[in-house]
Amino acid sequence: MDIKQYMEELGQRARKASRAMARADTATRNRALTLIADAIERDAYALRAANQQDMDAAAANGLAPAMLDRLALSDKAIATMIEGLRQIVALPDPIGEISGLKFRPTGIQVGQMRVPLGVIGIIYESRPNVTVDAAGLCIKSGNATILRGGSEAIHCNRALARLVKEGLEGAGLPADGVQVVETTDRAAVGALITMPQYVDVIVPRGGKSLIARLMAEATVPMIKHLDGICHVYLDAKADMKKALDIAFNAKCHRYGTCNTMETLLVARAIAPAVLPELARLYATRQVELRADPEAAAILRGYPHLAAATEEDWSTEYLAPILAVKVVADMDEAMDHINTWSSKHTEAIVTEDHTAAMRFLREVDSSSVMVNASTRFADGFEYGLGAEIGISNDKLHARGPVGLEGLTSLKYVVFGHGEIRQ
Amino acid sequence: MDIKQYMEELGQRARKASRAMARADTATRNRALTLIADAIERDAYALRAANQQDMDAAAANGLAPAMLDRLALSDKAIATMIEGLRQIVALPDPIGEISGLKFRPTGIQVGQMRVPLGVIGIIYESRPNVTVDAAGLCIKSGNATILRGGSEAIHCNRALARLVKEGLEGAGLPADGVQVVETTDRAAVGALITMPQYVDVIVPRGGKSLIARLMAEATVPMIKHLDGICHVYLDAKADMKKALDIAFNAKCHRYGTCNTMETLLVARAIAPAVLPELARLYATRQVELRADPEAAAILRGYPHLAAATEEDWSTEYLAPILAVKVVADMDEAMDHINTWSSKHTEAIVTEDHTAAMRFLREVDSSSVMVNASTRFADGFEYGLGAEIGISNDKLHARGPVGLEGLTSLKYVVFGHGEIRQ
Repeated sequence: MDIKQYMEELGQRARKASRAMARADTATRNRALTLIADAIERDAYALRAANQQDMDAAAANGLAPAMLDRLALSDKAIATMIEGLRQIVALPDPIGEISGLKFRPTGIQVGQMRVPLGVIGIIYESRPNVTVDAAGLCIKSGNATILRGGSEAIHCNRALARLVKEGLEGAGLPADGVQVVETTDRAAVGALITMPQYVDVIVPRGGKSLIARLMAEATVPMIKHLDGICHVYLDAKADMKKALDIAFNAKCHRYGTCNTMETLLVARAIAPAVLPELARLYATRQVELRADPEAAAILRGYPHLAAATEEDWSTEYLAPILAVKVVADMDEAMDHINTWSSKHTEAIVTEDHTAAMRFLREVDSSSVMVNASTRFADGFEYGLGAEIGISNDKLHARGPVGLEGLTSLKYVVFGHGEIRQ
Repeated sequence: MDIKQYMEELGQRARKASRAMARADTATRNRALTLIADAIERDAYALRAANQQDMDAAAANGLAPAMLDRLALSDKAIATMIEGLRQIVALPDPIGEISGLKFRPTGIQVGQMRVPLGVIGIIYESRPNVTVDAAGLCIKSGNATILRGGSEAIHCNRALARLVKEGLEGAGLPADGVQVVETTDRAAVGALITMPQYVDVIVPRGGKSLIARLMAEATVPMIKHLDGICHVYLDAKADMKKALDIAFNAKCHRYGTCNTMETLLVARAIAPAVLPELARLYATRQVELRADPEAAAILRGYPHLAAATEEDWSTEYLAPILAVKVVADMDEAMDHINTWSSKHTEAIVTEDHTAAMRFLREVDSSSVMVNASTRFADGFEYGLGAEIGISNDKLHARGPVGLEGLTSLKYVVFGHGEIRQ
C-alpha cells in the first residue's frame, strides 16, 4: 500500500464529509452520538474480544505494564465511554451561535458566527477510549476527523470505527465523517501532519517525543500540549491553613498528572514557619524534597531531603518529588516562574489582594490561580463539559480545550443592499 | 555581522521587554503612543529627508513605479500616521478584561483574562507607514514587537524606530518594546520565523511569494493572509436593484483590494434579466467579462467578452476583469464557492430568508454576507478600530484582525483555599 496515497484519499474523503458534518443540525449530530453509544453497548463483547487480541499481541511483544494498562478495555472502561458519549449529547451545541451582532454607521450589521474548524486530525497513544471520546467531540462540534491511534490498539480501534460509522450513517451523516487510519505504518503520521489542504488542525495527545517530532515536521497547525511544570507560590501574606492544604494537595493528590505542582516557592518571611509544617505532611507520603540552600537549611533533618540543581527547576517529575525554593518576595517568585515554567498552571496563596491581582495579571501561563490547588486546571473542573486536551500554546486555544476549541468564528454581515462609498 | 546571532539577540531583548510591555497599565501604553505621534510631528522634516534617501536609492535601482509609490512618505502620509496613532490611543484597552467568571460546584470561580500574545514579528513590504501602524497596535495590545520592513525603506524605518523608542522610553517603557531589524539581509527573515522561543506569532504582510516561503519554512505560528478570490451570488430571489448595485460595487469600487469580487455567480432563473443590465454598467468601466458558455450566450455582443477557462475560477485578477458563471441554484453556487474560493469573503443577494440563512451557515469563508458588497470586509468597516491584517486561516483569528487578534485568553481561578477531592 502506498501510504501517502492512502492518506491523501482519507484526506479528500474527510474534506468532502466535513461539509455535510458542518451543515448537520443539532438533533442529527446528537442522534449520531446516541446511536454510537447504543452500538458500543450492544457490541461490548466483540469489542472486548478485539481488545484481547491487541492485549495478547502487545504482551507477546513485551509492552511495558503501564502501557498494557492503558491499552486494556475493561467493562468499566466501556461503560465510561458510553457515559461520555451521552454526556457530550447533553452539552449545548456550540455551532451556529451568532455573537456581537451590531449595526455599523454604513447600515450593515456585523457579527461573528461560531463554525466548525473543518477536518481535525488526532494523533494519540494506544488508548482505545480516546478513539470514542475524540470522535464524539468532533461529531458534536460539526467537524470531520481522522483518528490515528497507537498501533497496539489497531484491532480495537477498527472495531470501534465500524460502530462509529454505523452511528453516523444511522443518523444520515456521511460515514467518512470519522475515519480511523487503518495502517500501523508510522509514515501515516508524517502524511497526516503535512496535508494542510485536507486537515485544518492536528491535536496530538501523547508523549514529548511525539510532540517534538510534530513540531519539527508539521505544516498543519496544532493544538498541542507539551509539559506541565506547575508552581505554587506561598506568599508572605499566605493563610497558613490554605498554604498547607494547597501545597499538599497540588503535589500529592495525583503525581502523574500535568497539573501537579513540581516546584514550590516560599516567601522568605514565612519559610521558617511553613516549611517544617509542610515537611511533616510530605513525610507521610515520603515525598522527596529537592531544596535550594536556604530551604535546605530550614528542612535539615527531613528524611527525604536532597539538594536542588538548576535542572530541577525545569523537570516535570510526575513522581513524589518536589523542588523547593525560598524567594525574597513575589517579584522573585514571578521571575522564577516566568523563567522556568512550562506556562501550564501556577498558583499563589495569599490574603493580600494587591498581590493576588498582580500575580493573576503578570504570570504568563495558561491557568493562573489564587488560593486554589493547581489540580483544578482541567476541562471538567472548569465547566467545559469535556476536554480534547490542554494547550500550552497561546494562539487559538489556551489551557483546557473543550468543544469551543474545535470551532472558529467567521464574520457574518446582514445587509440591505449596502455598497461601499 | 552574524545574522543569526543578531536576530537571536533581538529575540532575547524582545522577550525580556515583553514582560514590561504586558505589565504596563493602559495610561502608560497610551502615553507612549501619544509621545510617538508628537515625535513624528516634530521630526516630519527629517523623516521626509530619510525617505528621500530611500526613494533616490530605489529609483537608481530601477524600482517599479507602483513600488516607489508605496515607498513614498508624503506630508499627507505622515499626517495619516500621526492620526492613526491618536485613533489607536482612543480605542478601548483590550488587555486585562476578565470574562465569563463563574462559580463552580467545588467553590472555585473560573474565568478568562485577555492578555498580550508576547512577542509579535511583523514582516512587510517597503511601506514606512506600516512601521508606525504595526508598532502602534502592538504597543496598545501590550506586546513587544520585531518589525522587518522591506529593505528599500531602511533609512526611513531606522528614523521611525528612533522616534518609537523615544516615545516608549518617555513613557517609562523599555526601548526594546519595539525593535526594527536594522539589516536588509534576507537571512534575517529566515531567522525571525524560526525562533519560537522568542517570537509568539508572525504577521506577514506582503505578496503571495513571501507567504508561500513562510508557510514552507516557518516554525513560529502565523496570522496570514493569502489571497482574495471573492464571490457574489445573485440568487433567483434577488432584488434587481440590490443585485446591480452590489455586483457593480463589489467589482468596480476598487480593483486592487483583496475583498474585491473576482467571480460573479448568477442563478439561471434571473440570468437573462440581470446579466444584460449588469453588462451595461460594467461597460462604462470596460470591465472584461470571462463568461461560462451559458453566461456568454446571454452576454453575446458585449464588447469585452471572453470565454472563461477553469483557471479563471481560481484567479485573483486585481483588475477590471470578472469571471461570470450561470448556476442552477444556490446549492450549485455554494459548491462552486466551497471548491474555488480562497475563503476570504462571499456574498449572496436574495430576498429569500431561508436561502440567506443557509448561505450564511454553509459557506466556509472568513466573511459571509447577505445583501452587502464584499468591499465591506475590512477592520474599519467592521468596527474593529484598526486592522493589522486579514486572516485566511481558521485558527485563532479569522477575517479582519484588530487588537483582539494580537491577544489571547488565559484562565484565571479565584479560590478560597479549595483543593481537589
